[in-house]
Amino acid sequence: MKPIQVGLLGIGTVGSGVFNVLQRNQEEIHRRAGRGIEIAMVADLDAERARSIVGDKARVVGDAREVIANPEIDIVVELIGGYGIAKQLVLEAVAAGKHVVTANKALLAVHGTEIFKAAAEKGVVVAYEAAVAGGIPIIKALREGLAANQIQWVAGIINGTTNFILSEMRDKGLDFDVVLKEAQRLGYAEADPTFDIEGVDAAHKATIMSAIAFGIPVQFDKAYVEGITKLAATDIRYAEQLGYRIKLLGITKRMDKGVELRVHPSLVPAKRLIANVEGAMNAVVVHGDAVGTTLYYGKGAGSEPTASAVIADLVDITRLIEADPTHRVPPLAFQSHTLREAGQDLPVLPMAEVVTSYYLRIRVADEAGVLARITGILAGGGISIDAVLQREADEVGGEGSTQTDLIILTHDTREGDMDAVLAQIQGLPTVLAPITRIRKEELN
Amino acid sequence: MKPIQVGLLGIGTVGSGVFNVLQRNQEEIHRRAGRGIEIAMVADLDAERARSIVGDKARVVGDAREVIANPEIDIVVELIGGYGIAKQLVLEAVAAGKHVVTANKALLAVHGTEIFKAAAEKGVVVAYEAAVAGGIPIIKALREGLAANQIQWVAGIINGTTNFILSEMRDKGLDFDVVLKEAQRLGYAEADPTFDIEGVDAAHKATIMSAIAFGIPVQFDKAYVEGITKLAATDIRYAEQLGYRIKLLGITKRMDKGVELRVHPSLVPAKRLIANVEGAMNAVVVHGDAVGTTLYYGKGAGSEPTASAVIADLVDITRLIEADPTHRVPPLAFQSHTLREAGQDLPVLPMAEVVTSYYLRIRVADEAGVLARITGILAGGGISIDAVLQREADEVGGEGSTQTDLIILTHDTREGDMDAVLAQIQGLPTVLAPITRIRKEELN
Repeated sequence: MKPIQVGLLGIGTVGSGVFNVLQRNQEEIHRRAGRGIEIAMVADLDAERARSIVGDKARVVGDAREVIANPEIDIVVELIGGYGIAKQLVLEAVAAGKHVVTANKALLAVHGTEIFKAAAEKGVVVAYEAAVAGGIPIIKALREGLAANQIQWVAGIINGTTNFILSEMRDKGLDFDVVLKEAQRLGYAEADPTFDIEGVDAAHKATIMSAIAFGIPVQFDKAYVEGITKLAATDIRYAEQLGYRIKLLGITKRMDKGVELRVHPSLVPAKRLIANVEGAMNAVVVHGDAVGTTLYYGKGAGSEPTASAVIADLVDITRLIEADPTHRVPPLAFQSHTLREAGQDLPVLPMAEVVTSYYLRIRVADEAGVLARITGILAGGGISIDAVLQREADEVGGEGSTQTDLIILTHDTREGDMDAVLAQIQGLPTVLAPITRIRKEELN
Repeated sequence: MKPIQVGLLGIGTVGSGVFNVLQRNQEEIHRRAGRGIEIAMVADLDAERARSIVGDKARVVGDAREVIANPEIDIVVELIGGYGIAKQLVLEAVAAGKHVVTANKALLAVHGTEIFKAAAEKGVVVAYEAAVAGGIPIIKALREGLAANQIQWVAGIINGTTNFILSEMRDKGLDFDVVLKEAQRLGYAEADPTFDIEGVDAAHKATIMSAIAFGIPVQFDKAYVEGITKLAATDIRYAEQLGYRIKLLGITKRMDKGVELRVHPSLVPAKRLIANVEGAMNAVVVHGDAVGTTLYYGKGAGSEPTASAVIADLVDITRLIEADPTHRVPPLAFQSHTLREAGQDLPVLPMAEVVTSYYLRIRVADEAGVLARITGILAGGGISIDAVLQREADEVGGEGSTQTDLIILTHDTREGDMDAVLAQIQGLPTVLAPITRIRKEELN
């Protein structure tokens, strides 16, 4: 069957991410969606750059309306941004009966009501997972995963630029202006950073989350918006002394009288997970009456993280169009006829084939040469050492003890190799007890 | 329209949560799903206890097959657990053409292939969000939210009992046996805790995640399973000295030769968010090639958190059955005709109505009586103080300075009240600079 035909409006950072990820993972995405998904047309004012990205894989045009008018196109992806031409094009695509995917939070926070109404009348989907918190599937969590709950509040670090600046201010004790310049130099802040540092971008996202959390329309004009430009390094330091971190939060809360919707710097207890979200990362905490507190963490911006969300929407729409209606989402994520047999292609590996790093605790006689002997055996087995902690005999066994613990952290090793080496070490007369071996994961 | 009719097999901890949350949030769930969802029948061997929970709201029977045979029932929820009768009943419900929702990880990790095949042949859904990590919508994130990605690895704290025990061992320096007894006393561990502490429960969940991450069948028999019973307090202490925490992780990784699938205690760098997941909480880290690292955190067990996931599945199926097929998930989460008008019922509140706590930094003359005067004004405005940090004048302004910073943390206050009080304080002759006011959120 012909792949779903996608038309891209704008191929900058996010657009090229969408193109590249769809190319790279096309087989897997096809297996999940039940049909191929392919970018057939790209509209960009800079046709030359567009062609340098897509080569001969897609038709490049200068006029977005050519994409919208093309009856072959099933889904239009709007990546232009802003309220102006983007709004017109989204409404025209909807009017032409196209499903639309957009990453445009400004557009939806301000004109969402009008756009969703038009989409409902035409019977098409306007999907926007990428509009809030980049690659984190927070729209899906709020609209579907937590549908049982009366949501009580949502609070998020939903602007990476400001979180990077606040992390740097705290780490280095520097003032806002200094760190902003650094962030601009590193590409974490734009040349005109107003929307980020004044909290407007976060307020767009908080507005969208308030609507889907509480069943109210998007009301950006009612949001309280305060940025981080007036924050002093002093306050970050005092907050720390009191056990808090300062984060720019987008907050929406359900109260008896109505809904709070606000963006401003906030102190957060340092022990909360969200207080430990550093650099350009995003995180959203959602509190529901049944589920309690949940948190969603990941990259909130960037080419491929944002593309991940755009493509998730493309897969959703493809499953809606294509899949057996009783099986929109296949039980094991991939369409069942594409599942591998057990053992085929991707067998589950035996433990001896697993690669991981290790913590070893070896109880040894406190004698000269023991450490050299053991590290020699490890080296002989091709196992490289990350760190060694050798305890004083007295600390471990009490005064006058002749035993001690040798703690070794290794780099990545095949478990089978480690088994062989440990058998050798265990056999040494100076090793006085069964060796403790715990695996170690960096999870980076 | 008649609500979707649900039949519950088993009404213990999770079942009563499902019943209670569906009752409490019925209006909101109806607005989201597009149709009411109601428990019409309950089968439980203890009919008396079942009646004490559901009253006259649902028909109580002793025989689960009466529920399955009832043509009025649209969805069967299996909450019996285990591989035995639960498997038969799920297969019978599928054969009877019912959609099934289950929280039974053991069943799916071992017999999932057979069950999903039967469901596909009958054209019904078998949904299981509650089977992994309780209320955290991790199945949805993996099957839908991250569908663009080649998933590279998944690693999770997916058993609350063992995470509680490890947190206690670390906090209090106690050994495994002592903490296990404490956990049993507090209800965090069962009388027979084997499945939890030996890693079997975590391996069931890791098995399910490996299948949906990589498009392979469930293969519990291939999983490496190691629990926490042999962990010594010593190792937790040494790990800490080296900058690590020890967690029981369920891990599945895609390698060139195949898939790793393993559960065992692991050292994790202490600075990772997941290393800071304490007590009975769960968290899953997913690394995809496009999105990078994402994390999902929340309650992994308990009556209402698990019910949250079961009901999310009920809403998914209801939207599938009922909704306009082009609009399975409404754009703003609630069906559009149920959205409130802007300002109706749940208006966005003006900032003066917002309730939050505050950090205040007040530059004052270093004179006797200043603190008393300021705290007096706060008290007069009904604002109660959580903490005060008074700096020495010299620390702030340098040697011989006559100025100092007064830092005050308040309890929750209406912003309007705070505005009024701050205007008064700002007017004092001993207040020497504009007051800094930053809001504070507990996010608990």
